[in-house]
Amino acid sequence: MTTTPPAFETLQYAVQNGIATISLHRPEKMNAFTHQMCEDLIAAFDATDADDNVRAVIVTGSGRAFCAGADLSSGGATFDYEKRYGSTGVKRDGGGRVVLRIFRSLKPVIAAVNGAAVGVGVTMQLPMDIRIASTDAKFGLVFARRGITPEAASSWFLSRVVGISTALEWCFSGRVFSAQEAHERGLVRSLHAPEDLLPAAYAIAREIADNAAPVSVAMARQMIWRMAGAAHPMDAHKVDSRAIQSRGQSDDAKEGIASFLEKRPAQFPNRVSSQMPDFFDWQGEPDFE
Amino acid sequence: MTTTPPAFETLQYAVQNGIATISLHRPEKMNAFTHQMCEDLIAAFDATDADDNVRAVIVTGSGRAFCAGADLSSGGATFDYEKRYGSTGVKRDGGGRVVLRIFRSLKPVIAAVNGAAVGVGVTMQLPMDIRIASTDAKFGLVFARRGITPEAASSWFLSRVVGISTALEWCFSGRVFSAQEAHERGLVRSLHAPEDLLPAAYAIAREIADNAAPVSVAMARQMIWRMAGAAHPMDAHKVDSRAIQSRGQSDDAKEGIASFLEKRPAQFPNRVSSQMPDFFDWQGEPDFE
Amino acid sequence: MTTTPPAFETLQYAVQNGIATISLHRPEKMNAFTHQMCEDLIAAFDATDADDNVRAVIVTGSGRAFCAGADLSSGGATFDYEKRYGSTGVKRDGGGRVVLRIFRSLKPVIAAVNGAAVGVGVTMQLPMDIRIASTDAKFGLVFARRGITPEAASSWFLSRVVGISTALEWCFSGRVFSAQEAHERGLVRSLHAPEDLLPAAYAIAREIADNAAPVSVAMARQMIWRMAGAAHPMDAHKVDSRAIQSRGQSDDAKEGIASFLEKRPAQFPNRVSSQMPDFFDWQGEPDFE
Repeated sequence: MTTTPPAFETLQYAVQNGIATISLHRPEKMNAFTHQMCEDLIAAFDATDADDNVRAVIVTGSGRAFCAGADLSSGGATFDYEKRYGSTGVKRDGGGRVVLRIFRSLKPVIAAVNGAAVGVGVTMQLPMDIRIASTDAKFGLVFARRGITPEAASSWFLSRVVGISTALEWCFSGRVFSAQEAHERGLVRSLHAPEDLLPAAYAIAREIADNAAPVSVAMARQMIWRMAGAAHPMDAHKVDSRAIQSRGQSDDAKEGIASFLEKRPAQFPNRVSSQMPDFFDWQGEPDFE
Repeated sequence: MTTTPPAFETLQYAVQNGIATISLHRPEKMNAFTHQMCEDLIAAFDATDADDNVRAVIVTGSGRAFCAGADLSSGGATFDYEKRYGSTGVKRDGGGRVVLRIFRSLKPVIAAVNGAAVGVGVTMQLPMDIRIASTDAKFGLVFARRGITPEAASSWFLSRVVGISTALEWCFSGRVFSAQEAHERGLVRSLHAPEDLLPAAYAIAREIADNAAPVSVAMARQMIWRMAGAAHPMDAHKVDSRAIQSRGQSDDAKEGIASFLEKRPAQFPNRVSSQMPDFFDWQGEPDFE
Repeated sequence: MTTTPPAFETLQYAVQNGIATISLHRPEKMNAFTHQMCEDLIAAFDATDADDNVRAVIVTGSGRAFCAGADLSSGGATFDYEKRYGSTGVKRDGGGRVVLRIFRSLKPVIAAVNGAAVGVGVTMQLPMDIRIASTDAKFGLVFARRGITPEAASSWFLSRVVGISTALEWCFSGRVFSAQEAHERGLVRSLHAPEDLLPAAYAIAREIADNAAPVSVAMARQMIWRMAGAAHPMDAHKVDSRAIQSRGQSDDAKEGIASFLEKRPAQFPNRVSSQMPDFFDWQGEPDFE
């Protein structure tokens, strides 16, 4: 089955062999983040979730940078949303809308950080599941140097990824730091020569796409992210008892066990688009108030 | 005081010099997990909690494996609980019942992972306090390769032990990984030659048994595990103010300070079976609904 | 503007070049913690928060030790608060009152651990943002060896700093461990020769003081600490949407962006004492019951 891939103003989007690649694509602007890129990213993750051909998602940047942060072409009014948009009431942070959409993704997301990642260029990576980086990459949580604050829900995500002390240290000074430091502190899983970065990302995605049941992966992703903030393991026990009960009688489980006992690759029949069990609101989220 | 140790169908259980050793004991089946083993493990932790002679608990596997995961002898019906047990309503996951029992343990628990640990063979380790492993051990969170999902409340525990990115990566691909990777990613504290594994576990247990007040250890264990999911440090302050007030006037505290000032080993008089203070429900848990 | 620094019975307090140094100062008693030191520390953090000249805070110990723990000069009655103070009802743990005050600090806090840190000498460090240590330092969460329990809300903080397995291991055995182990397990960020310790702490503080907007730093600190216990990233999104909206139209943001585009150091005009936005109770905390 072939479908026309969606087209975006600020992204390139392609699906090949079960893996979607989303490239931030404003290379002449170091892929700086705009309102349009916010909307495009949300729509791109809607597309990867809806397409059963997509078993994993890779996010990278076109050209030299990953994402240089918010586009500062509006100068001092960049973050003055009331001046720029005339909104009344509370305007939702655009980076936050993106990360909450990625949080709800039903497909695994791998960040392949090819170059500079600054501000929202870092914080958008945090709800991605696995981050790998080029040795040329650099990172900066520069908010305090711009007179603003951490956004994109990074005050929730960052300490869960790198621990609270590193989260605080990076956000206090706002300094730009190396790929090496990002690796040592746990922000990225592994470093790669620039030409090896995308092949490494595809290898990680490939192992998932070739071996794991898509519905199982989608459920595991939501269960692990949701339980990161849960008070007691009983919260997980309630969900996973239902999850095992539901998936345990599925055709996927029969195939998973049969293929294991027969020592052959599995061919899982169930699909994310139609067969997520309904005991949990897999893509629900609390209201923004 | 000598008591006859309890006997179990699927476990070996022994207490010596203040340390209980629970061995998963279906060596001809690589200690695969069954409904009986679930019940036996719960009963074994009831026994260690009730026995004041037990100051620490070691869990290991008989034979070559630690635990090869769920017993697949029922084939494709292994996880189809409705077919196997005819239950109506939500059936509680057996692995979850075990880990919630270990979560409530009043004694420290050390996993000595002697060989292959797969599926519930890994997830049952997560509420154990300290994990050490043989260099021969291997691990796999293989659920997505079997068409099912993470169980045993591992969606809550795993990210708290190894961080969320590693938790997701391991559960997505379902691949089996080495003791070395388990160590580098923080799943196990230290690696040991096979013949050194149990001596290392006993040395850790010994240091606790010889130096720490049992009631203090039981309370510390419950406080740290419960506060792992608490929203604000005030939650801890409420409990530990009461804990210090209660233990501060105990004979254990008088002996602890006296022995320290006199530079001699302490002989703590208080007992877990009868002297846990009553301001907190040390073994309570939320209802399963 | 010069103000007379506050004077304390058990602390030395000085502000120079934007950095406050608080030295635990009972060197003849290895800076052992007393009721007076509890009150002094709380007052000292009230002072650093109120003084806009203070951009970062360093906490260290006078003499050889950092803090040898609770002063045991009352012997077996040390932790018997009812006997010592005649209190009725629940007496709040003094270490807990200190750490909750540090938790609410609007300035970054760096611990420079110059020597032995035992009991509350360790747990008071946990709400500090960054810990560095002398190679001569040593640490001990010795509560179980004294017949008492972890205090100062450390059951909440410790697992968030070093992970749950290390938190449990250290609190079970109560053993004293080396600066090297503290570094390997993540309790301290870096080790330094004794003579290099304070210069290293000042360098970290300097980078914050010279580059970051004070209101941004204060808000980031509260956002990251508060969200460490939050259930869902939506909790962060609600706060940071308001934070970006508020700070985005500030003079700090205009200066931050202008100085960046003009490649010059920023001079941030806004002040913590008067310009923290009012949509969040930055120093509020739940009631103690």
